[in-house]
Amino acid sequence: MNYKKIDGGVTAPLGFVAGAAYAGIKNPDKISEKPDVAVLFSETPCAAAACFTKNKFCAAPVILGREVLKKGKARGIVINSGNANAATGEQGLKDAKAVEEAAERLLGLGEDEVFVCSTGVIGKRLPYERVIKGVEAIVPHMSRDKGGDAAWAIMTTDTEKKEVAYELPISGGTVRIGAMAKGSGMIHPNMATMLAYVTTDAKADPKDLQAMLSRAVDRSFNMTTVDGDTSTNDSIFLLANGASGVEIRTEEDKKALADLVEAICIDMARRIASDGEGATHLIEVEAYGLPTEHDARLVAKSIAGSSLFKAAVFGRDANWGRIMAAAGYSGADVDPTRADCFLKSAGGEIQVMAGGFGLEFDEDLAKKILSEHDITVIVKFYQGDGQAKAWGCDLTYDYVKINGDYRT
Amino acid sequence: MNYKKIDGGVTAPLGFVAGAAYAGIKNPDKISEKPDVAVLFSETPCAAAACFTKNKFCAAPVILGREVLKKGKARGIVINSGNANAATGEQGLKDAKAVEEAAERLLGLGEDEVFVCSTGVIGKRLPYERVIKGVEAIVPHMSRDKGGDAAWAIMTTDTEKKEVAYELPISGGTVRIGAMAKGSGMIHPNMATMLAYVTTDAKADPKDLQAMLSRAVDRSFNMTTVDGDTSTNDSIFLLANGASGVEIRTEEDKKALADLVEAICIDMARRIASDGEGATHLIEVEAYGLPTEHDARLVAKSIAGSSLFKAAVFGRDANWGRIMAAAGYSGADVDPTRADCFLKSAGGEIQVMAGGFGLEFDEDLAKKILSEHDITVIVKFYQGDGQAKAWGCDLTYDYVKINGDYRT
Repeated sequence: MNYKKIDGGVTAPLGFVAGAAYAGIKNPDKISEKPDVAVLFSETPCAAAACFTKNKFCAAPVILGREVLKKGKARGIVINSGNANAATGEQGLKDAKAVEEAAERLLGLGEDEVFVCSTGVIGKRLPYERVIKGVEAIVPHMSRDKGGDAAWAIMTTDTEKKEVAYELPISGGTVRIGAMAKGSGMIHPNMATMLAYVTTDAKADPKDLQAMLSRAVDRSFNMTTVDGDTSTNDSIFLLANGASGVEIRTEEDKKALADLVEAICIDMARRIASDGEGATHLIEVEAYGLPTEHDARLVAKSIAGSSLFKAAVFGRDANWGRIMAAAGYSGADVDPTRADCFLKSAGGEIQVMAGGFGLEFDEDLAKKILSEHDITVIVKFYQGDGQAKAWGCDLTYDYVKINGDYRT
Repeated sequence: MNYKKIDGGVTAPLGFVAGAAYAGIKNPDKISEKPDVAVLFSETPCAAAACFTKNKFCAAPVILGREVLKKGKARGIVINSGNANAATGEQGLKDAKAVEEAAERLLGLGEDEVFVCSTGVIGKRLPYERVIKGVEAIVPHMSRDKGGDAAWAIMTTDTEKKEVAYELPISGGTVRIGAMAKGSGMIHPNMATMLAYVTTDAKADPKDLQAMLSRAVDRSFNMTTVDGDTSTNDSIFLLANGASGVEIRTEEDKKALADLVEAICIDMARRIASDGEGATHLIEVEAYGLPTEHDARLVAKSIAGSSLFKAAVFGRDANWGRIMAAAGYSGADVDPTRADCFLKSAGGEIQVMAGGFGLEFDEDLAKKILSEHDITVIVKFYQGDGQAKAWGCDLTYDYVKINGDYRT
């Protein structure tokens, strides 16, 4: 694959504009510099694909989003942070619908052309009039250079903006792909996305887009965990507006776009894990040699999600026994007598287990490896070709602090 | 059921003796008052039942224990803390067998009459000679009043001894049942026992004992979670030596014993959760009205295991949205539009959700409720008769501290 990183995020592709405003969604009395309402808009109709949380207590915007998605096309997305509009019953659905309809009117669109997304506190009624006032303030001033403001507006406990964009040459010319995401807590496989948005100015079929997105999500966000809690609001969207005039035609084009969408999703998923609530380390887990890919996914996710191992990484303790314990309870078909385990980072690499048996190793080197921000755990079995990667972060005092008093 | 609490633990039933010694298992250079090797011994042969971890990386003593269990009888158990003898390969099996054989010799028993158990650090070779020296020191001085010493010896990060005993009148007379347990971290459903031992001087059939124990474990230890990590060493044993001369004969007898074994297991499981690593609250979750018991178990366990809700309880934050989010991702068939949620403790009771919709509630009362050590979460659905209880604890700074530097 041949592609080039460019500046910006969701508005780097042609024909997309964005804007953001502060509307006091969480607390109307608070003055804040950080915006909490964002609008993403395409000047021309988009083919649309999306994946949503599998949590049965899904939020109102997710229920609405599934409806809008049925048409396979959309023009805009309104996103608010500060309130998840989840566990808000029928009223929540009405409130989300009111935001959607107001946005469609303000953007001069027809019915079911706008997705709405919410993230923040669960169980409080959405101040929908404030969201609409935010959209009113944003619409007249949307532009291509405000993608970054939108990426800022959707953040909650995130400590950094997550956006990226690339140019991709395909058979008919060059297309651009951009993305933004948020998500820091309540992150766990089964559509562990939080909110993510991928845009492209390629012209593409919504069915192809959906296939690409589903595959990419499976290998990225669904392999990411911060705390084992699957959110009520997880949503990811892929919008293609065709503004480049370049069409996804050949199988090679599809594969190139699909691979880049997957790479972008993995990048976003890694950044979400790395920015996990309170995290001081990104943990990447690579599992090899399992009987099937499914087994490998179970092993990798289980290790990335082990509270004990996560706490050990925080303490820079090479407690590999917890890695193998997590592999053992993952539900995968693992043979404990033929397992190797390695720890790796920019600080070095060390083997800590061979054939299911612990090795004597240099504790100083292990500490050095675990002192880096990005840590890789490699587990190798010798039972087949199944392999997978998963991402997580360490468990820290600050995770407890952030979540011990988030609502109040 | 009609039964009475009595003093003591595993040696409260007639014919059981115990002892404990310090053998420097974790660190031979350290002087310690707390014993780390325990022996539990029955003066007459016992019918035996046991359940073991489902972790595929199970420890050597678990592999050995499954063998010994095949005979359905036993005389003694040797337990060491400080080293789990897990991920120690073939050598670990040999070391565990060496302990078993030495104990059988020292206790004057035949082959396969002693269970061995280990708990502590994973992946380090068991100093089996030290364990044997401990057994040598213990055997000449075992007595009925040393059950408490054994309960102390098996502790690792536990902050308190866990033992209990009861008298139970059945058709033929009175029998006694005692128990001890340890376990504080690496605790999660799927045989989330850590180590637990239940003794009785009733005379009973091993098959009946196994049925009782399996049912009790399913409703107690398997519904307990501290950190989501299923240990490599979880084991629970039920030994019946018949020393009371009273036989479990009638169906009523069986039911009475089974119910008391279940109550004891629930008590031990609650105490393990309450003494979870770093815990400042016991969280009991009651789920009602689910389509099936299986659904109810999924819901209760999911809520008890939610890192986000656990952190909220630590912060005394009535963040019920996280409760319902955990119910929603539990995998159970839940109808979010018909769910009620209550928080309860010695401090009071408050309803926080009705019909899937958040209620305005008195935040001061909620804080008061969450200030108590024992918190109950009640979720009610209206879809059927399935109900279940689960136990967990809050997630605290100290959990991170304890596990950030346990091995070194």
